[in-house]
Amino acid sequence: MRLLEGGVCAVEGVSAGGARDERYGVALVEGSGPTAGTFTSNRVRAAPVKVTQRRLASGPLDGTIICSGNANAFTGERGVEDAEWMADLPGGNFAVMSTGIIGRRLDRERVDKLFGRVGPSPGPEGSRSAAEAIMTTDTFPKEAAVEGDGFVVGGIAKGAGMIEPEMGTMLALLYTDASVDASTLQRLLRSAVRDSFNMVTVDGETSTNDTALLTSTGRSGGADEDELLGAVESVCTSLARMVARDGEGATKLLEVRVSGAGTPMDARRAARAVARSPLVKTALFGGDPNFGRVVSALGHSGASLSESDISIKFVGDGEVAVAERGCPVEFDEGEAGRILRGDEVAIEATIGEGEYGATAYGCDLSPGYVEVNAAYGEEG
Amino acid sequence: MRLLEGGVCAVEGVSAGGARDERYGVALVEGSGPTAGTFTSNRVRAAPVKVTQRRLASGPLDGTIICSGNANAFTGERGVEDAEWMADLPGGNFAVMSTGIIGRRLDRERVDKLFGRVGPSPGPEGSRSAAEAIMTTDTFPKEAAVEGDGFVVGGIAKGAGMIEPEMGTMLALLYTDASVDASTLQRLLRSAVRDSFNMVTVDGETSTNDTALLTSTGRSGGADEDELLGAVESVCTSLARMVARDGEGATKLLEVRVSGAGTPMDARRAARAVARSPLVKTALFGGDPNFGRVVSALGHSGASLSESDISIKFVGDGEVAVAERGCPVEFDEGEAGRILRGDEVAIEATIGEGEYGATAYGCDLSPGYVEVNAAYGEEG
Repeated sequence: MRLLEGGVCAVEGVSAGGARDERYGVALVEGSGPTAGTFTSNRVRAAPVKVTQRRLASGPLDGTIICSGNANAFTGERGVEDAEWMADLPGGNFAVMSTGIIGRRLDRERVDKLFGRVGPSPGPEGSRSAAEAIMTTDTFPKEAAVEGDGFVVGGIAKGAGMIEPEMGTMLALLYTDASVDASTLQRLLRSAVRDSFNMVTVDGETSTNDTALLTSTGRSGGADEDELLGAVESVCTSLARMVARDGEGATKLLEVRVSGAGTPMDARRAARAVARSPLVKTALFGGDPNFGRVVSALGHSGASLSESDISIKFVGDGEVAVAERGCPVEFDEGEAGRILRGDEVAIEATIGEGEYGATAYGCDLSPGYVEVNAAYGEEG
Repeated sequence: MRLLEGGVCAVEGVSAGGARDERYGVALVEGSGPTAGTFTSNRVRAAPVKVTQRRLASGPLDGTIICSGNANAFTGERGVEDAEWMADLPGGNFAVMSTGIIGRRLDRERVDKLFGRVGPSPGPEGSRSAAEAIMTTDTFPKEAAVEGDGFVVGGIAKGAGMIEPEMGTMLALLYTDASVDASTLQRLLRSAVRDSFNMVTVDGETSTNDTALLTSTGRSGGADEDELLGAVESVCTSLARMVARDGEGATKLLEVRVSGAGTPMDARRAARAVARSPLVKTALFGGDPNFGRVVSALGHSGASLSESDISIKFVGDGEVAVAERGCPVEFDEGEAGRILRGDEVAIEATIGEGEYGATAYGCDLSPGYVEVNAAYGEEG
């Protein structure tokens, strides 16, 4: 597998573009084919989620239109009408996604104006322009693409806040030129999302709007299913890591790697509990090797474990073991602090003798998270 | 029921005292009788929790010794020996509690020295001195007492960080002079804790050390059980509100009152999810009436609800309805902001036609939470 530039437009048959004004962004991604989707588990589903689920059920998609700046969630029947209106703008069977403030009606005039300016193109600049148009509090656009044996998988995503496991996911839009039927696509996407986007936690919040779509344009013919799954996972994981690193206020990426769990679910639970812990996240921000907070998070994760099995390492530029088989060990606090102050930090935790592991993606918790969110509503 | 001064020492037969140095605090509360306890649900239980559970099983307690500054958690068998040693200091069947950093061995010499200075007394100054000695990042001591018909219930507590529902609780120590057997006490405590301490969330973290004890000294004879339950609930709720208000970095108290739930568990889930939400908490800090975050938190709480049943009000000095039956309503944003900037704010949410309600206690999320926790480990 080879990394490619060009994000979602690295896939043949896909064009994209975006436009922004001071409050909204609109992106259009065009490319037809059978499509798989995963959606938020929030009981309050945004209007665009409802509309996209209907569009998926009605046959192959022609693309997706995305609006940032307004979530079009908790907007009643009028919100659904607005989402249908927006999905119909490009002409064809389009999915629709939204992200932004909840509980406000979509400004159709603003969307219409921006839609007139999106000008989709098939080159890397198209993907970049779309990825930029869907940013809210994101600080950089999120694109990834890989080339497998005779096929390509590419995607774009947005994240930042209201990000937490057990979701369909934040917004992500993936394409492949491999020829795959809709049910296989759904299996591939579900599996890849489980270990990537669903393992990201920024703040424990599951949005009303989370959506991930994977469309096959079929331009390149068949592909080996395992290899294709690997490519989809690779793109999802790249985007998930970007979403984690770009969590609101984040200064670094955290990977929590759990091993020794008795079940895959226990491994995922334990990893996410540590990545979600505000006390672990603040310690990480402060470069403080307070591994007791990792122990406590593992203990209340719901995963089956016993204290005497817990071993913990901080890993970055070097590694330091801080706990072994249920006991603290002597360690160099200066060296541990140096690792924690790095740009990417991993916490490796063994929680038993089981054979299952999982990796969760998160970030530190800085005063910036509070600053971004104390006034977000005012910005619309 | 009448509020009393004097905290735990408002109960006849109870003496208390405390002492601090620059890193540790030690408190001693003396008073004999049958005792009920609730404990952390964290799979990693601290040594003092294990020892206290054994002491409770072996008969009536003579009191409790508490250490702040070191949690004596994740300290293996040596930690249990240290907790036994500490529990034996006063002589008699004493419970032991600890709070502070996890994964470091207890400094016996320091505890011993402080123990020599605790000098318990039966007056209000005794309760105050004990409540002060157990503070970690708490900014004020937490005491409450009420007088019922012929009996008194009093208690002290500590909270601040690593505070979240589904726990035994943070540290709380309650006494009553009503004569009650151990199994009735256990029923009373469990019921009161469920609606008070277990409804507090500061940061979604369940400590390894949470413990609440209720001892009956029996000095005043029998009491009406319902009235006694009301008094125990009153003291627990007062202490729980203090713990919420004094959450790390908090500038205000948040009460989330949910009604219309189909089951008591759904009501509690929904209330706690809103109180726990970092996005709701940052909006509260910023005085931003972003009710969409309340909607989203309700939606991912796990409670059964439908969007069209959700109504929300902000209540403080005045009240403002922001959503009614699934739709945003026009409201005065200035007035809503003024309410949210108050010292105590309630969010009232109706989630359906059911008959169950619950109240959760929380606080806002300020940059102070990050500041306190980015360096806590360094302070020991």
